[in-house]
Amino acid sequence: MIVSREQAERADAQDPLRALRGAFDLPPGVIYLDGNSLGPPPRQALERLRRTADHEWKGGLIRSWNGHDGGERWIDLASRCGAKIAPLIGADAGDVIVCDSVSVNLFKLAAALISAGGRRALWIEEGEFPTDGYILDGLSRLTGAPLSRLEPGTDLSHAAGGVLVKSLAHYKTAAVADMAAHERNAQAHDAAIIWDLSHGAGVLDINVKAAGAKYAIGCGYKYMNGGPGAPAFIYVDGAVANHLDQPISGWMGHADPFAFGRDYAPASGVARFAAGTPQILSLSALDAALDIFRGVEMAALEQKARALGDLFIVRAREAGLSPIAVNGRRGGHVSIPHPNGYSIVQALIAKGVIGDFRAPDLMRFGFSPLFLSYAEVWESGDVLRAIMETEQWRADEYAQAGPVT
Amino acid sequence: MIVSREQAERADAQDPLRALRGAFDLPPGVIYLDGNSLGPPPRQALERLRRTADHEWKGGLIRSWNGHDGGERWIDLASRCGAKIAPLIGADAGDVIVCDSVSVNLFKLAAALISAGGRRALWIEEGEFPTDGYILDGLSRLTGAPLSRLEPGTDLSHAAGGVLVKSLAHYKTAAVADMAAHERNAQAHDAAIIWDLSHGAGVLDINVKAAGAKYAIGCGYKYMNGGPGAPAFIYVDGAVANHLDQPISGWMGHADPFAFGRDYAPASGVARFAAGTPQILSLSALDAALDIFRGVEMAALEQKARALGDLFIVRAREAGLSPIAVNGRRGGHVSIPHPNGYSIVQALIAKGVIGDFRAPDLMRFGFSPLFLSYAEVWESGDVLRAIMETEQWRADEYAQAGPVT
Repeated sequence: MIVSREQAERADAQDPLRALRGAFDLPPGVIYLDGNSLGPPPRQALERLRRTADHEWKGGLIRSWNGHDGGERWIDLASRCGAKIAPLIGADAGDVIVCDSVSVNLFKLAAALISAGGRRALWIEEGEFPTDGYILDGLSRLTGAPLSRLEPGTDLSHAAGGVLVKSLAHYKTAAVADMAAHERNAQAHDAAIIWDLSHGAGVLDINVKAAGAKYAIGCGYKYMNGGPGAPAFIYVDGAVANHLDQPISGWMGHADPFAFGRDYAPASGVARFAAGTPQILSLSALDAALDIFRGVEMAALEQKARALGDLFIVRAREAGLSPIAVNGRRGGHVSIPHPNGYSIVQALIAKGVIGDFRAPDLMRFGFSPLFLSYAEVWESGDVLRAIMETEQWRADEYAQAGPVT
Repeated sequence: MIVSREQAERADAQDPLRALRGAFDLPPGVIYLDGNSLGPPPRQALERLRRTADHEWKGGLIRSWNGHDGGERWIDLASRCGAKIAPLIGADAGDVIVCDSVSVNLFKLAAALISAGGRRALWIEEGEFPTDGYILDGLSRLTGAPLSRLEPGTDLSHAAGGVLVKSLAHYKTAAVADMAAHERNAQAHDAAIIWDLSHGAGVLDINVKAAGAKYAIGCGYKYMNGGPGAPAFIYVDGAVANHLDQPISGWMGHADPFAFGRDYAPASGVARFAAGTPQILSLSALDAALDIFRGVEMAALEQKARALGDLFIVRAREAGLSPIAVNGRRGGHVSIPHPNGYSIVQALIAKGVIGDFRAPDLMRFGFSPLFLSYAEVWESGDVLRAIMETEQWRADEYAQAGPVT
């Protein structure tokens, strides 16, 4: 256990992941504890974006859809990018595609599952990430499929024969669900789980295949560092994808989009979950950002995120705060409830320590292991303690006003 | 009528829009007749993209959602970008939002309309842009709302009480529908029309409000030059938007997304049609590209596109080809059927004249009036004629192979 700045620095010197920090170009004077909300840009993502804009769009113009003059071939970039995400979640390369947003992908996947016969009821746990509930609610309003709320920890027998959406890592507590146990439970009750990997992919050691998980969605702009609002991904087990019919059946998910045939015929596998034309600039940044993970063990990332978070928890306690404790595996973030959380986070940001705030009272700090050092986390603890001891957060400038992101 | 290169150059000298060419940086040796498929980058879009990446993402990090250090405020960029599109289609500034793709937006809008009570049947004309049909088909499969095909030109009484999707400018023929007449007809039969403006917005003088059109979707990457796969837009008349419930009800369309409330409550107006987090890199490029239209009369753009297309038609006929004739208004492109169309387009591209090909036999050329000159169109006619006279397109290298974009 690290109990001094010197020990933190020693941990950095021994950190097998420390070289990865060089792939990022973080602004001076900032300790970035919000890579769980928006990852910072890897240098290669910024370079790629310039190349995509200047060489592929400006130079190649329409020709870049088929690849032009050494540029990327846009038409299958979504699949190639999906193949880079696959090893991060333990999926086969052909079972992941990048497209749309998490919201749209959840809609497509849940709609496909309730259309596949048999399962009709939609389920979500109380306290889940709200937008996942909004999307299921929308699907319910459109189709009449009933949406019900499950108390967390409830046996899945209540959701027998239904479709449940569940976060792997909870967006507030960071508690990590036991994927394999839930899958066994779900399959015993003929329920299907759509895993929302948004707060886990890129930081946790996930193995959907080993756990028996068949359906998942997730986010490209958090631990994957794909850029603001980066496109999302969707995973469907190759053994079942061809049985699913997703309703936003646009031309990019067509078996032969450029035949311009009158009738829809879905592409084989998860590719059928693509809908419209991908936003190539955003997709390209994500595609380049993912190259950072090449050769990196996800278990090592999870382990370092845990160690960084553990260090922060100790330091937050020293500052008189009570971080939410998690039994078992924890995602890459740590949340601390405080009635003045908004103001404390603002005061921290003013001192260069960037975290975020989730209404009504939660301060949230992310420990992205790709670029954060133990010394930085130690330092953030000093800043936090100073703010709490001096009550600097009471300054007028940190009072809550306007929307919070 | 222009019958010589000199006259083409004179037309350029007198062109009130000629200064706009300087806003683009087209590759040397290229005559770009495909701005209808992918607009070239305005210089300011490339600059903005660099600023968004380097200043806002890298420098501002998560803070840029609320605007940081002079950068754009991301959280309402989709609405501000929509407000820039509004004058291009004759809508009120608050009635347009940029989000997702055309396919996803059509799904949301059609779903909202069949959910709004009364109207249930979905209609599309035979020969419409295929992906619009695929999307309605998907909505039909999910909800059971019947999808039927209407013969073009059929009276809308067949679609009484239904929801019809219709392109303003046809993707093949470029024929422009009489929006006001169709709206009168539709309203007489209690039908709702969703206008697909993809092949018209940014080049035609569109006035949805004057025509009584209430619902439209459209594309950001064609005549708007927003970048490859740029996000799409959605227009809903402010008088009816609050009566519509779209099913992909993600947090970005929530009245108060950062309250993280359990239950969905739609934002007021067209903003409720947003779903997930916007892809900011792509959205920013579009937002900057739209500034080109400031102070430009859409009628002047339509007029120049028409004149450029007319000139090309004359030249194509001289080359022995038979462009599709359009009575009345025409969109920004001209299509030419030919059994060897694919090879002819490839031969043209090899000579620097970039058009595209639409299966099974259509060569398609776009005349984006923001950057094309009469002299370029004249020159493209020379290239086309040479290729046809010498039958260069028969060369093996131009034979069709692989996918066509």
